[in-house]
This record gives sequence, C-alpha cells and structure tokens, in this order.
Amino acid sequence: MESMMIYMPAILAIIGLIFMWVKRSWVMKQDAGDGKMKDIASHIYEGALAFLNAEYKLLSFFVIGASIALAGIAYVVPTTHYLIIVAFIFGAFFSALAGNMGMKIATQTNVRTTQAARTSLPQALKVSFGGGTVMGLGVAGLAVLGLTAFFIFFFHYFMGGEWTNTTQMTVVLETLAGFSLGAESIALFARVGGGIYTKAADVGADLVGKVEAGIPEDDPRNPATIADNVGDNVGDVAGMGADLFGSYVATVLAAMVLGNYIIEDMGGNIVDAGFGGIGPILLPMAIAGAGIIISIVGTLLVKISSNSAKEAEVQKALNIGNWTAIALVAVASYFLVTWMLPKETLTMGFFVGGAEGFEYMDISSIRVFYACLVGIVVGGVISAVTEYYTGLGKKPVLSIVQNSSTGAGTNIIAGLATGMISTFFSVLLFAFAIWASYAFAGFYGVALAASAMMATTAMQLAIDAFGPIADNAGGIAEMSELPAEVRERTDILDSVGNTTAATGKGFAIASAALTSLALFAAYVTFTGIDGINIFKAPVLAMLFIGGMVPVVFSALAMKSVGKAAMKMVEEVRRQFKSIPGIMEGTAKPEYDKCVAISTEAALKEMLLPGVLTIGFPIAIALIPMLFGYENVLIAEMLGGYMAGVTVSGVLWAIFQNNAGGAWDNAKKSFEAGVMINGEMTYKGSEAHKAAVTGDTVGDPFKDTSGPSMNILIKLTCLIGLVIAPILGGHTESDIPNEGASIEMEEGINAEDISEEIQVNMTSEGNKTIAKVRITTTRKGETKVQQKTFTGTKAEVEKQVQDLKDKA
Amino acid sequence: MESMMIYMPAILAIIGLIFMWVKRSWVMKQDAGDGKMKDIASHIYEGALAFLNAEYKLLSFFVIGASIALAGIAYVVPTTHYLIIVAFIFGAFFSALAGNMGMKIATQTNVRTTQAARTSLPQALKVSFGGGTVMGLGVAGLAVLGLTAFFIFFFHYFMGGEWTNTTQMTVVLETLAGFSLGAESIALFARVGGGIYTKAADVGADLVGKVEAGIPEDDPRNPATIADNVGDNVGDVAGMGADLFGSYVATVLAAMVLGNYIIEDMGGNIVDAGFGGIGPILLPMAIAGAGIIISIVGTLLVKISSNSAKEAEVQKALNIGNWTAIALVAVASYFLVTWMLPKETLTMGFFVGGAEGFEYMDISSIRVFYACLVGIVVGGVISAVTEYYTGLGKKPVLSIVQNSSTGAGTNIIAGLATGMISTFFSVLLFAFAIWASYAFAGFYGVALAASAMMATTAMQLAIDAFGPIADNAGGIAEMSELPAEVRERTDILDSVGNTTAATGKGFAIASAALTSLALFAAYVTFTGIDGINIFKAPVLAMLFIGGMVPVVFSALAMKSVGKAAMKMVEEVRRQFKSIPGIMEGTAKPEYDKCVAISTEAALKEMLLPGVLTIGFPIAIALIPMLFGYENVLIAEMLGGYMAGVTVSGVLWAIFQNNAGGAWDNAKKSFEAGVMINGEMTYKGSEAHKAAVTGDTVGDPFKDTSGPSMNILIKLTCLIGLVIAPILGGHTESDIPNEGASIEMEEGINAEDISEEIQVNMTSEGNKTIAKVRITTTRKGETKVQQKTFTGTKAEVEKQVQDLKDKA
Repeated sequence: MESMMIYMPAILAIIGLIFMWVKRSWVMKQDAGDGKMKDIASHIYEGALAFLNAEYKLLSFFVIGASIALAGIAYVVPTTHYLIIVAFIFGAFFSALAGNMGMKIATQTNVRTTQAARTSLPQALKVSFGGGTVMGLGVAGLAVLGLTAFFIFFFHYFMGGEWTNTTQMTVVLETLAGFSLGAESIALFARVGGGIYTKAADVGADLVGKVEAGIPEDDPRNPATIADNVGDNVGDVAGMGADLFGSYVATVLAAMVLGNYIIEDMGGNIVDAGFGGIGPILLPMAIAGAGIIISIVGTLLVKISSNSAKEAEVQKALNIGNWTAIALVAVASYFLVTWMLPKETLTMGFFVGGAEGFEYMDISSIRVFYACLVGIVVGGVISAVTEYYTGLGKKPVLSIVQNSSTGAGTNIIAGLATGMISTFFSVLLFAFAIWASYAFAGFYGVALAASAMMATTAMQLAIDAFGPIADNAGGIAEMSELPAEVRERTDILDSVGNTTAATGKGFAIASAALTSLALFAAYVTFTGIDGINIFKAPVLAMLFIGGMVPVVFSALAMKSVGKAAMKMVEEVRRQFKSIPGIMEGTAKPEYDKCVAISTEAALKEMLLPGVLTIGFPIAIALIPMLFGYENVLIAEMLGGYMAGVTVSGVLWAIFQNNAGGAWDNAKKSFEAGVMINGEMTYKGSEAHKAAVTGDTVGDPFKDTSGPSMNILIKLTCLIGLVIAPILGGHTESDIPNEGASIEMEEGINAEDISEEIQVNMTSEGNKTIAKVRITTTRKGETKVQQKTFTGTKAEVEKQVQDLKDKA
Repeated sequence: MESMMIYMPAILAIIGLIFMWVKRSWVMKQDAGDGKMKDIASHIYEGALAFLNAEYKLLSFFVIGASIALAGIAYVVPTTHYLIIVAFIFGAFFSALAGNMGMKIATQTNVRTTQAARTSLPQALKVSFGGGTVMGLGVAGLAVLGLTAFFIFFFHYFMGGEWTNTTQMTVVLETLAGFSLGAESIALFARVGGGIYTKAADVGADLVGKVEAGIPEDDPRNPATIADNVGDNVGDVAGMGADLFGSYVATVLAAMVLGNYIIEDMGGNIVDAGFGGIGPILLPMAIAGAGIIISIVGTLLVKISSNSAKEAEVQKALNIGNWTAIALVAVASYFLVTWMLPKETLTMGFFVGGAEGFEYMDISSIRVFYACLVGIVVGGVISAVTEYYTGLGKKPVLSIVQNSSTGAGTNIIAGLATGMISTFFSVLLFAFAIWASYAFAGFYGVALAASAMMATTAMQLAIDAFGPIADNAGGIAEMSELPAEVRERTDILDSVGNTTAATGKGFAIASAALTSLALFAAYVTFTGIDGINIFKAPVLAMLFIGGMVPVVFSALAMKSVGKAAMKMVEEVRRQFKSIPGIMEGTAKPEYDKCVAISTEAALKEMLLPGVLTIGFPIAIALIPMLFGYENVLIAEMLGGYMAGVTVSGVLWAIFQNNAGGAWDNAKKSFEAGVMINGEMTYKGSEAHKAAVTGDTVGDPFKDTSGPSMNILIKLTCLIGLVIAPILGGHTESDIPNEGASIEMEEGINAEDISEEIQVNMTSEGNKTIAKVRITTTRKGETKVQQKTFTGTKAEVEKQVQDLKDKA
C-alpha cells in the first residue's frame, strides 16, 4: 500500500515556496527610494549577479567533469545507477538556484530597507527581515522539495512505489546521495569563493580608504566600496545559503539512510500506521517539512512597534520568533515520532564490534524523540556558548580589549587564546550530543538530532540574511548621503545582525558536525564494514592525514585572501592617483574594475582548496587499490580519514569563527569607548589601532576559512558515501557483517567447513519475530551472521526455510 | 640461561656518564673570565638554581600525591605491583637530576664560552659545544642507566632473571612503566614551567627595555635581563632535556612491551643466539646503549679550525658530527637486529580486527632493520622540512618579510598560514612513517623506528644545548661590556644555535609522535582489547574530546605567558621609576625581584595545564565506571581519547613551532636588511616593527605551548598505559582477544554451548610450531581465540594437550 504521507513534505515545501513568493511580491512593492539610491543599489545588484554568473559558468565545467566521474563509478559498480548523475546535476542546480534567489532578493531588499528607514525603524526591520524570510524560505523550500521529489521519483523507479526490501531501498538512497553531493559541491565553491571575494574587497577597501586616505567606510569616493557591498551579499548571503542548503539536504538524507537500516534491523519489514512500511525513512523528511511551516509562523512573530527601539528590542523580537519556532519543532517532533514510527518498540542494532558484531536491542520509539530533543537543546546551547565568547561586553571580548593596550602582539595572543579556549565547552557539548543521542536511539538518533536541529533552517537563515541586508542598507544610506537618522536606524539593525551572524555560525558548525557524524554512520553501514578500527596502522595514518587537511585548507583560504587583497590595494591606489577629481567627488571611481578583481581572484583561488577537498578522499580510495589492498581495509582507511577531517575540522571551525568574532567585537567596543587601566579609550587611540590589527587577522578567520570548514567536513563525508558502494559489499547480501571478508590461512585442513543455523522464534499478537544466527566455520575461520525476520508466522517460517535451503 | 647482554646497555650508559664527567672537568677547568663576568654568571646560575629548586620542591608534593594514587591502583589491581611506586619516584628523580645537571653545566659553560670567545671562535665553539655534550650525555646516560637498571632489578625480582612466560614479563614491564611515567610527569612541568618562565622574562624585558626605554638587549640596566638569561637555561636547556629524557625512556619502554608480544606471538618461547630468549625485548635497550657511544664519536667530530669562520662553517661542523652519528646508528642497528633477533624469521600477529582477530605472519627479521631505517630517515627529513619552513632566506620566511610591509595584520596572517601549511609535508611524512614501519614489522617496527631515531639523542641534545649557552655567552659579553669582536663571535654561534633549535624541535615532535604511537600500540595490547573502533559513539565522542585538549592546553599556556609578562612589565617600569640612577648605570637594578616574578608565575601557571593533562584520561577511565560501563568499552574510549590527543597534538605542535620559528627569523631578516618592493629595509622601519609584533605572538607559540605538545601527547599515552591493567584482562589469560567480553542475548537456548579446537602442526628442523584455534559458541555468540606454540615436538604436544584438557 502506498502512503500519501510520502507527498506531504513536498506539499509543505511548496506551501513554503508560495508563502515566499507572496512575501517577495510584498518586498518588491516597497519604495526603492530616489535616483541616487537606485543607482548605487543597481551597482551592487549587478556586481553580485556578475560574480554569481561567472561562478556558475566556471562551476558548470566542474559539474560536467564530476558527472563524467560519476558515470565512471556507475559503469564500474553494478549497484550504482546512472540516475545518480541526474540527481547530482539537479542538486547542483537547486543549490545554485537557491543562492541566486537569495542573493537577488537581498540586493533588492537593501535599498528598500534604506528607504523604509527614512520613515521608521519598525518599517525598516519589517522590510529587511522580509527579505531575509524570502531567502530562508527559498533555500529551505527548494531543499525539501528537491530531496522529496527525487525520493518519490527513485522510490517509484526502483521499487514501484512500494516497499520491497532494504537492499532496493539502499539503491534508492545511494542514488539520492547524488542530489546531496551536487548541492554540497556547489556550496563548497560558493562558500570559499564568496569568502575570498568579500574579504579581499573588505580588506582592500579598508587599508587604502580608511587607513591611507582617511575617508569613512562606504564612502562613494572609494573605488572598492561597491565591491565591498557586493561581497557582503555573495559571502554572507549566497555563501551561507548554499552552506545551509547543503547541510539541510545532507542531514535528512543521512537520517533516511539510517532509517532504512532500522527497518533491516527489524527483519526487513515493519508494520506502521499507514506509512507503507517506510515510516523511519519518511520521518526525517516529515520533520523537515513541518519545520518549514513552523518557520513561517516564527517569522510572523518578528516585529517591533516602537520607533525609538534599541538593539535589545530588535534582538528580543528575533529571539521570540526563533525560540517559538524551536519550541514548536520540539512539539511537532513528538507527534511525528509517535505517529510515524512503529508503535511501542523499535529493534535497533547497536554496534558492539569485534566477533560480536551487532547487539540487537528493543528500544521504545519515544527514545527517538529524546534524541531529537538532544539536537534541539544542543543547537540552542551552542549558540549561547558562541555568543559568550564573541559577544560585546562579555569577559572574553573585554579581555582582548584590555590586551590591546599593550599593542597588537598582545591583542593577537589574547584573540587566538580566546578562539582556542572556546573549543572546550563546544567540544564537550558535541561529545555529549553524540553520546546522548546515540544512547537514546543509535546513529539514527544522532541523525534525527541533527534533523530536528536543522528543522528551523528557514528561520535561522531569515535571521542570518537580514544582517547583511541591513549592513548594505547602511552603506547605501552613507553613499547616498541621506540624513544621519537613517544611518542610525540601519546601524541598530546592523549591530543586531553582527550578533546573529556569530550565533548563526555556531548553529552552522553544530549542524555540520552532527550531519557529518550521521553521514559517517551511513558510510559505515553502506560499506558493510564492521567498524573503523584505528589500531590498524594504515587507518591510523589516514586519521593523521584527515586531521591535517582542514589546517592546510584554512591556510590556503587565508593566503588567497591576502593575495587578492594586495591586488585590490594596488588598484585602489592606482585610481586615487590617476583619476583627477576622485577625492573631491567630482569624478566617479571605476567601481567595476574593483568588482572584477574580487571576482577573478575568488574564482581562481577557490580551485585549489576545492581540489584538495575532493581529491584527497578519492586518492585514499584509489591509490591503495592500485597496491592491491583489500576493499574492507580501504573502506576503513577512508573512514579514518573522514573521522580525522571531522574532528580537526570542527575544532578549527570553532577556533577560527570565535577568534574572528571576538576580535571583531573587541574592535567595535572602542566605538562606544572602553575603560582601560581606569581611562576611557576611544576610536583612534593606540589601543584601537591594535584592535584593528586583530580584526584584520580575524576577518579571513571568521568569513573565509572558518565557515568553509563546515562544508569541508560535510563534503568529505558525502564523497565517502558516494564512493562507499565501490568499497562495500552490502548488495551481496543484506546481512550485517557480510562485508568483512576473511583471510584464509594456509596450512589448515581445507575440509574444515561447517555451518550452523540457530533460530529463535517469538510471537507478539499476530506478529512473529525470528532471530537467526548463522555460524560458518571455514578453514578454521569463523564468521557469525545475524538476521531477524518479522511478519506473520507463515511468512517468517517460509523465510527461515529459504535460508536453510540456501545453506 | 641468563644472558650477559642484559647488562650491556647499562655498561654503555656508564661509559657515557664517565666520558661526560671527563668532559665536564675539562669545561670547568676553562677560564671563567674576570670579576664582572663571574658576577653576572653567578646571578644567572643562582637564578636558574633557585627556580629549579622551587620547582622541584613543588613537584615533590605532586610526586607524593601521584605515588598515593599509584598505591591505590596497586591495591585495586592485583597485577599492578607496589614496586611501580619506587619506579615512578626514581623516574621523577632521574628526570629532575638530568635537568639539574644540564642546567648547572649550561650556566657554568656560558661565561667560559664568553671568555673563550676573547681568544678565538674555534675555542668558543669547543667550550660551548663541550657544555652541550656534557648535557646531552648526562641526559641520555641517566635515561639508559635508569631504565636498564630497573629492568634488571624487576626481571630478577619477578622472574628470577630467567624467561618464564609473557604474562610475567608483562608484569615486569608494567612496573617499569612507572619509571617512564615519573620521568614524563616531571618533564611536563619542566617544559610548561620553563616555557612560561622564559617567555614572561623575555617579553617583559623587551617590551619595557627595548621598546619603552630604548636600551639594547641584555643591557645590564634592565632589571629583567638576568631573568631573561635565566629563562634561556630553564626553558631551552632544562625543559628540552627533560622532554628528550622522557621521550628516550618512553620509546625504549614501548618497544620492550611490543617485543614481549613478539615472543608471545611466537608461542611464548623463542630461541635466540644467547640472549636468554628475550632478544626482542633487549634489542631497543641495546640500540639506545650503542647510541650513546656513537654520540660520543659524533661529538668528537664537531670542530672548526679557522678563526674567521662564519655560520656556514660552524653549521657544517655540527652537521658532520650529526650525520656521522646517524649513519653509525643505521650500521649498528643492522648488526644488532641481525644478531639479537631469532634467526631468519619472526612470527608476528598483524591485527586484522573484527571476528578475525590477529593474522599471524612469518616475517624475515631483517625487516625490523628496515623499520629502523624508516625512523632514521624520517628523523632526518623532518628536520629538513622544519628548516625549510623556518629558515632564514627560505621562501616562507621571505614571504612573511614581504607581508610585513603592509603592517602587523598581514605579517600575522602570513605567519599563521606558514605554520598551518607546514603541517602538510610533516603529516604526510608521519603517515608514511607509520604505514611503512608497520608494514615492515608491525607496531614493534613502529617502536623500533622511534628507538633508532632517538638513538642519537645525546648528540641532538649537545647540538640543542649549545645554542642557549652561546646566547647566554653573548649576553654576558654585552653586560660585561667586552670588545665587540667577542659579541660577534658569540653571535655566530648563537645564529647557528637558532637554526639547530628549530630543527631540534622538529626532531622532538617526530620522536614524540612515533613514541606515542608505540605507547598507543602497547596500550592496546596491555588492555587486551581487539582494537579501537571509532564507529562506537562513546569512542568517537572521546576522539573529539582528545582532539580538543591540545588546543585548550595551548591556550592556557599562552594566557599564562601573557599574564606573567604583564606582571614583569609592571615590575620593570616600577624599578625604572623608583630606583634613582638606574638608567645612568650608577645604581644596580633589583634583578632578583624579576627572577622571583618569573619563578612564581611559572610555578603557579604550570598547574592548570598539568591538571588538564593528567585529569582527563583519569576521568575518562573513572566516570564511565561509575555508570557501569564495561571495561572493554572504557578501554576503547580511553584509546580514542589518546588517538585524539596524539593527532591534534602533533598538528598543533607543528603549527605552533613552525609559525613561531618563521616569525622569529622574519624579524631577524631585518638585521642584515631585506629587499621589499625594490627597497632595502632595515631594523627600525615600519615593516620591522610589524615583524617584531609577529615575533611577540610567535614567542609563546614556539617556546611555551608548541614544545609542550610533545609531552602532552606522550604523557597522555603513558597514563593510559599505567591505567591499562585496571581496564584490561591480559592476566586472566595470555590469549589475544580474551579481553573482549561477550554480551549474552536472552531468548536463545542456553544449552547451545560448543567448543571446537583445531590444531595445525608444522616442523622446521628440530622446531615444531603448533597453531591452535579455539572456537567457542556460547548462547549463540561465537568467540575465536588463536594461539601459537613453538618448541620441540614433545613440548608443543604437551602444551596442546594441556589446552585440550582445560577445554
């Protein structure tokens, strides 16, 4: 029986997209201001569009190349279907579409926010947050729609729309992994490219404009100012959008893969309340779909009424919307879990390892809900931890401010130490999340913890995207020489946006970490290996190499920013010298030349980190094959590499994001004045200059290399997942432990082959469960396989008999 | 039959110590200069001694506390003997003694080097390197003597001086681990305390003296100058000495533990050419002993003849000695391996994991020599890689110099990126070392690679220690206002010393990494678990926590330096203000107050990192016990933690050491002048100031937190090794895989217990090998055990029969 429930998430996604369209029309109807404002805004819009178009053009070659590689895999591996290429291309296309949509609305909302700020602050918030909402719903809606549509398609194509067995569902989900891979690949380039773009423009504009020429931020005389504003959009908006699009898809996919293994653990067939026997697979999609509707509710709650409101009120309005959404997700998860999973208990294989393989336990299905709660709570706490380490007026930032008084050196040491020490609670929290969600419901629990955390992605993105929109709006106000009160209003929004940007990064890291773990678990089950044992030297060696990659990746990203910023500096200096009247405002700077420099640098420099990310896992899979290593060992080596990248990547993400955020706010502290050694110290002081130096170091940390870590770890695990079928043997049999091949030892009598089958049958109501253990002793080596059948007594007995006949 | 060979390493160590004493007498007979020089030198000597005495006093409380904890372990765990406490105390005492000896000779050689530099450069090198030689031979000699003496003692105490079986030898080696634990604990505090001391004094002296008061380095008017010179001795000499003392002992110990398992793999008894059947255990000690004599030969080759020699000639003289020593170790390893190991083949258990347990392979014993070669080569190459990333005139340093022209921010980014990118080749090299030495000879090969690399420790330390001696000699020349030519000569030695310091750090990291891996392998075999499987969520969680600890440890160390330096700054400022005539040189500064500040800060601040290092592994072992976790799982969790600390620690060690070294030399580049944008730039320029800021950040990186990483990872693995008997079940049976307990599943017929024993017997000459496999099926769970017996036919048949009777 086919369940209608399979269409539900897609329908919810479409509702989200319709709401997005309505919201978009409302934003676009708002007044876009006078001629000068429109002119500046169109510069930003066109610059951003030009970058995205150039980027997508370059990436289309990558997509073609990767498709050919996937075709190669599909040719070699019988269980990998060519449709994975279609899924991959659509994943890439949807990710690009989401980024493009978000960027377009952001660059059209900015000027409308400026205009709204001329009337009142509540109106400015309404417009800017409206733009953010469009972005958030667009990304989340496309993610859920794309994933569910392809799932429905593959479910019908491979299985005729009805549950058959876990092996066939594995083929469906492996093919679906192509969609996630496409999305994440584009995200990598969008994040790295966008990050390089925005920081090259930012650093270049500041170094010559603010420091050398002494003109304020966003001054229209600065040739790099348009590039700087474009950068906010391609980095913070399009980059962040692509990042969370990828996380969203990958999280749900990983949970679906692990849901399939729950069904397998329960004997290959389950009885659920009308979900066609695929309840555990549909559940993560259902939570994602519900999250879209909940996010809409959340966004509707974000409003302020007073025109004289300050940062605190704006922050509170955002918090109300956010917390309500999070609470509603918890409630929805409860109902969905209890409704969609088999009543009472789930049988779940907990990995014990070694000769014992899996231990099967019956756990109450409500424990899956507890795992969701773990994810929701950790998502909230990690944001709080991030805010503590990077927030204005908090101890860590104040300590950096104090250390600025003795110069840039001590400021840098204090900032680095803050970032490093912030890993303590964050990592303990992750360790707790892994341990607790696993203890509740195995790796399926880990994946659902991530899914529940990610359910409010649309809301999170709305909050994240509104920051750069407000930042841009302020820039337009400055460049259009509007009255000071306009800039004051946008500054309030911008300031709140800085805080939400930092906590948003914490959320992105947390989701990436949990997603990677879920993907890691899916990888192990796909390959059918019995765990990843780091006591094997080649696996340990790969753990080391995996740990190194995020460090080198970060270094490459930082160096790229340095190189591109130097070029920008030279170009701005050249324009100041060679264009007469530029400083008097009588001649127009050549904005497009600066835009072109950032664009070219970003596109060129994003390639090497991309090659590193994609090349290493492939090399680790292929090179040992040439040396004749066994697939099982290679699968473990690749798993060791994935673990190394994840552990090190999470650490470096936290370190870099928090150090960068703390330096930024230490610098900002001087704007209102800070007390150092009993003296009020302001902008322009020696201590402030030291703080500016710290911020220069922090910029690539927090906006280029730091956020890229998320995608690095997710993409690494996804590539592993796509390679898995080459290495793994799940299709030879759907019995766990099957993949582990056995070395024959010479000298033992070849006749020593024995097989023993033990059956234990129990009944509950009209359901019969048979647990079968097959012990094979062959040339002195023993292999234990375990299998559970569920169904009516007759069905089960037939299955057991078939197995015995086969033996 | 007891072999005399067991006494050989101790005798070689004593020869080394005698040579050290002769050399020491020669150094002490050298002229110590005039009254002023002697006066300054005695200030440094007394300051250093005062610090060490205060440190040892504080650490004696720690030793008492740890001894009580060890007594607790010995009480709880039947196989842990109380003698471990004696070993621990002696290990701590020997480490302290080695540090004390080294520091004393260094602070007495410095002034003699200054005096020698008044006559000629060759004489100055002879004296300073003579001091280094005394230090190197003292440390290495005490390490080998202490370890072998305790081994002989325990071997007689527990086994009557004759081979009985691997279980008893395991007790011997577990007790011996106490010696290593004592040495490494003291090393941790010596490194961290010394590192904080030296950098607090250095940064404090520079910030107020050089920058604020404008007086040169080592000016006698600077109250912190004595503390600064003391710091060189307690940090670079005593700290480095304790570090390598600990590495040396731990490496040899780990190799001995793994050697014991070789004997077990070969059936519990081997036939060797007169080494009492413990050849594989004696081999690492023999290589260490030979290394001492070889190092003496190496030090004798270090000399120059021309008084007009420059850095290159001095470097060449050191290189000739070093390379000769390394080549001789390779030759010695060949003869020792072929002589001491059983002829032709070794049977070695290679870990396969899962149900298959260990795979037994007969490997040619010459492959152990190949593993030694891997260690020797990697030790050499890692030094070269370190030199490339930190060396004057090399591309990375030149790039930092160029980036200094745009300010401190870009200088810092370039330095960080250099340190980060330097992990690429270093980690690939480690991964290769692990993979290759394991492929040659299993984890015994990894341990012997480390042993062979460490064999020239005495020579390495001589080269390392001569740098700070020359540095101090220059300081004394400056403070005593000697002619410029004296300072020029000591500057040549100092400059070479800076290069050797950087490569020495590379060597220390490489040795620590390989040592940790060997300890890690010893840990797994001690606990008897069947590997460490990171697919178990609690193990994965511990991998994350382990990865975080080095980062937080580094942050704590950096913050400590910052705090202590601030106090030093305040004290120096106070003295400049309140002591009249200090700037005119008519009044003497209160040197001892600055010495006291550094001493107190170092002692206070070293505690928290120490607690973190020691507390975490203990907590990871104890807390899950309270929750009723099984020992097997806890052992894997602790193993996951150890792996996390090692991987992350190695990365952060390389990153911090190389970034710090590169910043230092980028700053030094300005002394001779550098070409920036076509213009020669010198000291005092804006670019130079930016480079000085970078060096301030790099100082704690390369001298405090970076070098501490080595000890952090070694000590973590050692604590794991000492805890291992609590968790592991090796003493219940010496059959591999025994430790893995089996979960019973309910509902399966309880009568299903069967045991099958398969025997495969082969003969080579008069030696018979029996491979036995025991397959036990119990309540549906199957366990496979493997065992090999070697000996005469009658012996083997009896052992097999005993086993069958037991079944």
